[in-house]
Amino acid sequence: MKISLARKLAAEFLGTLFLVATVVGSGIMAERLSGGNSALALLANTAATGAALVALILTFGPISGAHLNPAVTVADAIEGGVSWRDGGQYICAQIFGGLTGTCTAHLMFGLPLISLSHHARSGPAQVFSEFVATFGLMSVIWGCSRARSSTVPFAVGSYIVAAYWFTASTSFANPAVAIARSLSDTFSGIRPVDVPYFVLAQFAGAIAATCLFRWLAPGIAAQAKNVVMAHSSEARNGGG
Amino acid sequence: MKISLARKLAAEFLGTLFLVATVVGSGIMAERLSGGNSALALLANTAATGAALVALILTFGPISGAHLNPAVTVADAIEGGVSWRDGGQYICAQIFGGLTGTCTAHLMFGLPLISLSHHARSGPAQVFSEFVATFGLMSVIWGCSRARSSTVPFAVGSYIVAAYWFTASTSFANPAVAIARSLSDTFSGIRPVDVPYFVLAQFAGAIAATCLFRWLAPGIAAQAKNVVMAHSSEARNGGG
Amino acid sequence: MKISLARKLAAEFLGTLFLVATVVGSGIMAERLSGGNSALALLANTAATGAALVALILTFGPISGAHLNPAVTVADAIEGGVSWRDGGQYICAQIFGGLTGTCTAHLMFGLPLISLSHHARSGPAQVFSEFVATFGLMSVIWGCSRARSSTVPFAVGSYIVAAYWFTASTSFANPAVAIARSLSDTFSGIRPVDVPYFVLAQFAGAIAATCLFRWLAPGIAAQAKNVVMAHSSEARNGGG
Amino acid sequence: MKISLARKLAAEFLGTLFLVATVVGSGIMAERLSGGNSALALLANTAATGAALVALILTFGPISGAHLNPAVTVADAIEGGVSWRDGGQYICAQIFGGLTGTCTAHLMFGLPLISLSHHARSGPAQVFSEFVATFGLMSVIWGCSRARSSTVPFAVGSYIVAAYWFTASTSFANPAVAIARSLSDTFSGIRPVDVPYFVLAQFAGAIAATCLFRWLAPGIAAQAKNVVMAHSSEARNGGG
Repeated sequence: MKISLARKLAAEFLGTLFLVATVVGSGIMAERLSGGNSALALLANTAATGAALVALILTFGPISGAHLNPAVTVADAIEGGVSWRDGGQYICAQIFGGLTGTCTAHLMFGLPLISLSHHARSGPAQVFSEFVATFGLMSVIWGCSRARSSTVPFAVGSYIVAAYWFTASTSFANPAVAIARSLSDTFSGIRPVDVPYFVLAQFAGAIAATCLFRWLAPGIAAQAKNVVMAHSSEARNGGG
Repeated sequence: MKISLARKLAAEFLGTLFLVATVVGSGIMAERLSGGNSALALLANTAATGAALVALILTFGPISGAHLNPAVTVADAIEGGVSWRDGGQYICAQIFGGLTGTCTAHLMFGLPLISLSHHARSGPAQVFSEFVATFGLMSVIWGCSRARSSTVPFAVGSYIVAAYWFTASTSFANPAVAIARSLSDTFSGIRPVDVPYFVLAQFAGAIAATCLFRWLAPGIAAQAKNVVMAHSSEARNGGG
Repeated sequence: MKISLARKLAAEFLGTLFLVATVVGSGIMAERLSGGNSALALLANTAATGAALVALILTFGPISGAHLNPAVTVADAIEGGVSWRDGGQYICAQIFGGLTGTCTAHLMFGLPLISLSHHARSGPAQVFSEFVATFGLMSVIWGCSRARSSTVPFAVGSYIVAAYWFTASTSFANPAVAIARSLSDTFSGIRPVDVPYFVLAQFAGAIAATCLFRWLAPGIAAQAKNVVMAHSSEARNGGG
Repeated sequence: MKISLARKLAAEFLGTLFLVATVVGSGIMAERLSGGNSALALLANTAATGAALVALILTFGPISGAHLNPAVTVADAIEGGVSWRDGGQYICAQIFGGLTGTCTAHLMFGLPLISLSHHARSGPAQVFSEFVATFGLMSVIWGCSRARSSTVPFAVGSYIVAAYWFTASTSFANPAVAIARSLSDTFSGIRPVDVPYFVLAQFAGAIAATCLFRWLAPGIAAQAKNVVMAHSSEARNGGG
């Protein structure tokens, strides 16, 4: 079944909305409840985000591929999976979805719709962290979508759980999420002024991983139509 | 194999019983052990609930579809998956199961069978949270049951783990569970007077998601017979 | 391929050894590190036990069915899956494995091989908890092994994560584990004098669930040969 | 498709790099945030490591088998899965990857590239713990790769989550990781002088498990080509 672009864009919008609502909302809840213990707050934030990724990629993967991330969409466009024209619209839907996600989280917690973050995340160690985080994320996606695409939701969710802790930046690894988080002056926020460096490092990491996997796992291009989840044969089987 | 309605109702009753016993019981245990740290208590409550959903949907899915939730049953009836007549009985079994679950939890922890909760959960932010929580839950169910129903237990469990933290209401997202929790004056309780608003928001969220996915993923109606898990080919294969 | 009884008994011995070593060992580690916060200690104990169950049932399931639990073996024998003669030997291997598991944990943590527990776990609420815990465990096993046996490791691991928290007894749900834990005067111990009540409640719970599922999911008896995991077609496929 | 040795070595290098970066990096983050509560720090370290293993084995398994561990490679070579010649190069790639992983983690957290650990982990209980940990790990790998190789990533991740807590040594279970952790004077470090005993115990444990499973699960040798994940039929199916 051919899925219309409008439906795909709606899926990217909704998926990124829920992803950002989870990151921001669970950060607010965790900060409120954790009595100042940051490890506990980040643990709750991590569990919520990893779990949301599993659920969202399973839900929206069969419709749009569940990129939910401009870096993934650009990587996919490089490999010819999505056209650059559609990819541009994907990215708009993701950014708009992310912003709506921040507003949704704020509304649920009775906060102003938008508030500029004062959480400084700058310096070479932070930026290098974002490069590593997104390099790893894109490696996981290419590695899994190549061999067994049905595992991608679990691989991506697991990877982000790890990356929240092993990177100094808590692994944003997603330009749309980074932008959306700059408008939340809460636990998971980032100062708007720090966002451009994060975004550049994220695109660089995703592109580096894409180049590497072009050599490491040839044949990706031919299969890149459905980056995150296959919709074809499996989708037809599963509905049983 | 045709499964009789009596068996389906018993599965809905038992599944909702264990779901509520988990929510209420793990809340009591967590509150007793956590020494006043609410983040830690909610983390334990979250882990128990998410894990229980995985186990219960895997267990009862092949028998009744493992709705365990009147909002899911109504959404399924709208799409023609379950008849309105059977759906009504499903909902009775769920509510009765939920109440028995509260009593079971109280009995296990040596508390009075029933106690009216004094935990206030009111205001527009809480009610909006329940709308979002149930909208997301129903989206996950329609998104996954459409393409790969065997992932539903994991998707729903993961979603609720996230939703416990990203909504201000800790995501009840289930009218039968909300009613049952109103009779427990413990960590996971809710004042009876707040329940109607929660229930209305939950039905509204589930119905909104159902309308959206009718457009987003056409063809659900034709497959909606087994909302949460397919019983047909897979069930025959799996039994070894 | 026919697997010899000696191999099956070795699998039950080793599996129960590692299960008890996990329960007891992680309890010791958690108590040492948690600085008196019982919720944190139980959370670590829970994560370790649930994860161990997934790994151990995946590992030993294809060899012996990975009962690792006399209550499961008795339930299986009732349904004709394992002969009573073999079942008796299974139970001996499980008990002996459990005791060796306690010794292994103590050895790893530099404690005396055996120490009688002083941890009182008595009274009707505790015993009722064990009935509910084992009733639920056996329901999960029958529900999943019937329809899709490959999910049993995940369903059982998830169930025990929930049951550690929703029962007042932290869900032993396993006579061999209860006996082995009575010989460890640490976090997860139980007074020897309390063990018989736990064991009786566990067998009662398992048998009650077996009777229920005989009606709820007819056809189990015919498929009960491999209670926990199918070894037949899937085992042949998986080896790649 | 035949995968070249260069690609396999790159996969082992990258996989071990990310594995060690996770262990070391999440240890640094956890220690910084946990305010001196070691149980909380180890819980975060555990979650990150277990999740990373799932993601990394899913990602690199189809390319190199995702050993990421010299003890696994030696066990595989004993069973004839990988040639001793290739195995030696695997081990070099793993050790070099591990060291690079430590440097990467230090770089992300703004620390000196290398620092000798002062964390004493010695004595018979610690060494015995490593024997048990690696014996268990190799049992899980042989048990799962034999019957259903697609579950290995989840089984290994789950096993390590348990083993972090049930062994007194927090289960290194990997010579390349042990060497790499000796160069990090942080939460997860180990004094260089303690490493040889850990490594010997790890190889002994892996070899003991291999001998046991040769009897317990005959037929491994014939299937040992792809220790951790099958690349053959499944890989072709999954790419959808």
